[in-house]
Amino acid sequence: MAGFFYPRTASGQASLIPSPPWFYSGDLLTVEYRTDPARVAELLPEPLTLADEDPGAVALIWADWQSCSTSREELLDPVRSQYKEAFVVVRCAFEGRTYSRCVYIWVDKDFAIARGIHQGYPKKLGSIWQTRPHPFGPAPQLRPGARFGATLAAGDRRLAEAVLTLTAESPTNGFVNGHPMAHHRVLPGIGRGEGDAHAELIESGASAFEGGQAWRGDVELRLFEAPTEELARLEVHEIIGGYYRQVGVTWDGGRRLAELPSV
Amino acid sequence: MAGFFYPRTASGQASLIPSPPWFYSGDLLTVEYRTDPARVAELLPEPLTLADEDPGAVALIWADWQSCSTSREELLDPVRSQYKEAFVVVRCAFEGRTYSRCVYIWVDKDFAIARGIHQGYPKKLGSIWQTRPHPFGPAPQLRPGARFGATLAAGDRRLAEAVLTLTAESPTNGFVNGHPMAHHRVLPGIGRGEGDAHAELIESGASAFEGGQAWRGDVELRLFEAPTEELARLEVHEIIGGYYRQVGVTWDGGRRLAELPSV
Amino acid sequence: MAGFFYPRTASGQASLIPSPPWFYSGDLLTVEYRTDPARVAELLPEPLTLADEDPGAVALIWADWQSCSTSREELLDPVRSQYKEAFVVVRCAFEGRTYSRCVYIWVDKDFAIARGIHQGYPKKLGSIWQTRPHPFGPAPQLRPGARFGATLAAGDRRLAEAVLTLTAESPTNGFVNGHPMAHHRVLPGIGRGEGDAHAELIESGASAFEGGQAWRGDVELRLFEAPTEELARLEVHEIIGGYYRQVGVTWDGGRRLAELPSV
Amino acid sequence: MAGFFYPRTASGQASLIPSPPWFYSGDLLTVEYRTDPARVAELLPEPLTLADEDPGAVALIWADWQSCSTSREELLDPVRSQYKEAFVVVRCAFEGRTYSRCVYIWVDKDFAIARGIHQGYPKKLGSIWQTRPHPFGPAPQLRPGARFGATLAAGDRRLAEAVLTLTAESPTNGFVNGHPMAHHRVLPGIGRGEGDAHAELIESGASAFEGGQAWRGDVELRLFEAPTEELARLEVHEIIGGYYRQVGVTWDGGRRLAELPSV
Repeated sequence: MAGFFYPRTASGQASLIPSPPWFYSGDLLTVEYRTDPARVAELLPEPLTLADEDPGAVALIWADWQSCSTSREELLDPVRSQYKEAFVVVRCAFEGRTYSRCVYIWVDKDFAIARGIHQGYPKKLGSIWQTRPHPFGPAPQLRPGARFGATLAAGDRRLAEAVLTLTAESPTNGFVNGHPMAHHRVLPGIGRGEGDAHAELIESGASAFEGGQAWRGDVELRLFEAPTEELARLEVHEIIGGYYRQVGVTWDGGRRLAELPSV
Repeated sequence: MAGFFYPRTASGQASLIPSPPWFYSGDLLTVEYRTDPARVAELLPEPLTLADEDPGAVALIWADWQSCSTSREELLDPVRSQYKEAFVVVRCAFEGRTYSRCVYIWVDKDFAIARGIHQGYPKKLGSIWQTRPHPFGPAPQLRPGARFGATLAAGDRRLAEAVLTLTAESPTNGFVNGHPMAHHRVLPGIGRGEGDAHAELIESGASAFEGGQAWRGDVELRLFEAPTEELARLEVHEIIGGYYRQVGVTWDGGRRLAELPSV
Repeated sequence: MAGFFYPRTASGQASLIPSPPWFYSGDLLTVEYRTDPARVAELLPEPLTLADEDPGAVALIWADWQSCSTSREELLDPVRSQYKEAFVVVRCAFEGRTYSRCVYIWVDKDFAIARGIHQGYPKKLGSIWQTRPHPFGPAPQLRPGARFGATLAAGDRRLAEAVLTLTAESPTNGFVNGHPMAHHRVLPGIGRGEGDAHAELIESGASAFEGGQAWRGDVELRLFEAPTEELARLEVHEIIGGYYRQVGVTWDGGRRLAELPSV
Repeated sequence: MAGFFYPRTASGQASLIPSPPWFYSGDLLTVEYRTDPARVAELLPEPLTLADEDPGAVALIWADWQSCSTSREELLDPVRSQYKEAFVVVRCAFEGRTYSRCVYIWVDKDFAIARGIHQGYPKKLGSIWQTRPHPFGPAPQLRPGARFGATLAAGDRRLAEAVLTLTAESPTNGFVNGHPMAHHRVLPGIGRGEGDAHAELIESGASAFEGGQAWRGDVELRLFEAPTEELARLEVHEIIGGYYRQVGVTWDGGRRLAELPSV
């Protein structure tokens, strides 16, 4: 049987996602803020612990992607290439190292969900929008005073909205999402009331990266309650900053940090 | 950490799906036909083999669902309850028993994808439509001569379309999807070029079932090629029949048939 | 040139909608309540005035439709037949008669928007959901105690949600939407700052109707603010009642009540 | 009553579209080809006639837009600003002048449909995708050899797909869409079997324009049949060329060319 992901077939043609490496071109709009570290700790299963420094730091990141496999063919049938996402990253510690960790994420395509299952991102479907820079007309260009909006909704409810007003070039694109990711990959047992059939802690990150000038700016951010979401529980106590950067990324697998009995 | 599926949190509120049991009300439009058994065999990884009788039989089933957890709360916020799906079922044998097996399936909600990952259904997103029976106006009622259409698209391409014209009440709703399901649950290893980190064969089926009168009818069916699908490879050699039935189903877990090294 | 609506072509095949009559099968979930009559009066352009009796009565109606033209062919390609809508109806008076009038409406298909332009319904796109009755499983049947939810969103924001709990059979399905509709059909002039190029007041209603037993029930209703909507301005002062009914309707044109210079 | 378009209210806040001027930033991927001029003539109602030169020339244009009103507020809530479209333009003559004319168009937002009703574009909903240029990662940059894909679907069927491979800078972005637009604005009469209640021929075009370097390239184009579309009837006899250009546009009304009894 061939095919990286399901459905597996003789040829592998129908697989929801092809084998890595996966290649990405995209725009990142990042908002970093501080919440109560106890709310971050709630989202860190053993053996993870809070990061030593600034443990309540959170990044809420919007990304507008074009992605493809080695064949590049998805780029020419862009319904299979383009997707948008919004995700929440915190930091944590494991065996003395600091990791980033995605605790919530929404995307708008099935292939992105499948990649998330492989990479340990807890992806749901959502409706994600962010202003794009453009050289002509009313859309903003990357320069001081430019304003970018970003919104997230799921289940027909708005969950978050942000406005970023660029102020200056920045040496960084934020720090919360700057470490290797430490993610759980978990599959509940098929039997009634069983624990997990599979649970592991894995590490991964970009295998190649290029990016343009990062920008920082002033941020307005609002989070909203919803009956099946807990994003708003990560209350905004203090805005750290906002950032905008265009990037190219390659992802080509990770490594297992620990096998776990159940999470 | 609480939550049946990801994301796991302190309360479990954000979990994409709650714990089973899961309850379903829905309408099934089924088309059964025969294809080349070799094309079915291609989709049966070891240790599965072709069914002894009628090994080329295929069921293409459209379903229009309302589903919920024990709380029933999803029914009152129906964006979280209602979804549609189209799926392809074949039969196979394992250790002397005959099983049904879903080889392709498309749904239109993320919670349905997540349930599929748990149950071993290889779910992708699609656009699925089927005529609904209705007591008034131009829509069909369940009686001879009533006509129901059903279509499936994914990636902005139509993949299948069927028209079912009811002819008579039927003692069955078809036979291909009538056995317990034998499904693989597979997670590729996170490392580059690794085999599967998790692979098992599981069995599951409805823990409770009720249904109305089944109807049979005449069928027109067309399958279409697409670059990322292999549905049309299950060529229609002979129509067996078409069926329509309204059902109520409960699903409450299954059991592991075999742990596998990799698939 | 042939074609009822645009685009007009030699054959008319591409017309977004075919000529009336149009036929509908559907389920109506109606919530009636009283608001400040001044808020209703704001939505009645000359020559319309408030209805004499109960002028603050409002109906918020969810409808789940299958619709078709005389050919019935849309029913067999249901992406062209099925749509959902939520709409707000008030009453008004014109030349001594009482009319119903749709002041806000959201649908989820383009053919429904086009019909609205013809009929004078001010249709926008929205995401509309309502619980469906079903004979099996967890979904409600039409009997006392059955509960139906209904929600409306547009622009990624939830605008309204209701829960209807059936209490008893009802001789009516409400009264606010029970009159012929008095609608404006307006097209702004193409020149900068011009008034309307076309403005008329028209009357229309069902040319044929059949329906099942109506039910009444208890209602919870919530309306939400949004930057491009004014639904929440029709504040809920007092719930009149909730209703559920399955219907079949034919629409086959109306008549002009008045030509207007501009509105 | 205030509000440029429906619904009209006391404040105008709920209007589906605000008053012009409207501002656009976007990317245009244009394919020009020749079809049988008789097929173009079929789409030109009186008093329009075929253009004198190259009367079978057709432009199929994909556009990826961010748009807004004078307030610019839509740019910061981009679900209200961003949309995609694909449209077919031919040329025609009226009173000795050559005009461009949009004969088919698909968009993915309701505000774009409403603008089309005002401007005379025969807009339907569709699913439209085109590769975006990006400075990093696998997406193309604007330079020789860069490849852009573009697809169009409606009603769950793919209608068109193109691949453009840039070859060189170009002094033009094509010629078919280069004239003022001559569009009909038509509203069928509300009475059964009536002719049009309103029919006029209008002219409009950009009131301001800026653009980057245009590129030309090699094109592959495929059109597909669908039961409610006639795009494929404009058969591709000869490819003229393909073009890519980023632009900023302002639209601020037009003028009436002729009032017509019915079309």
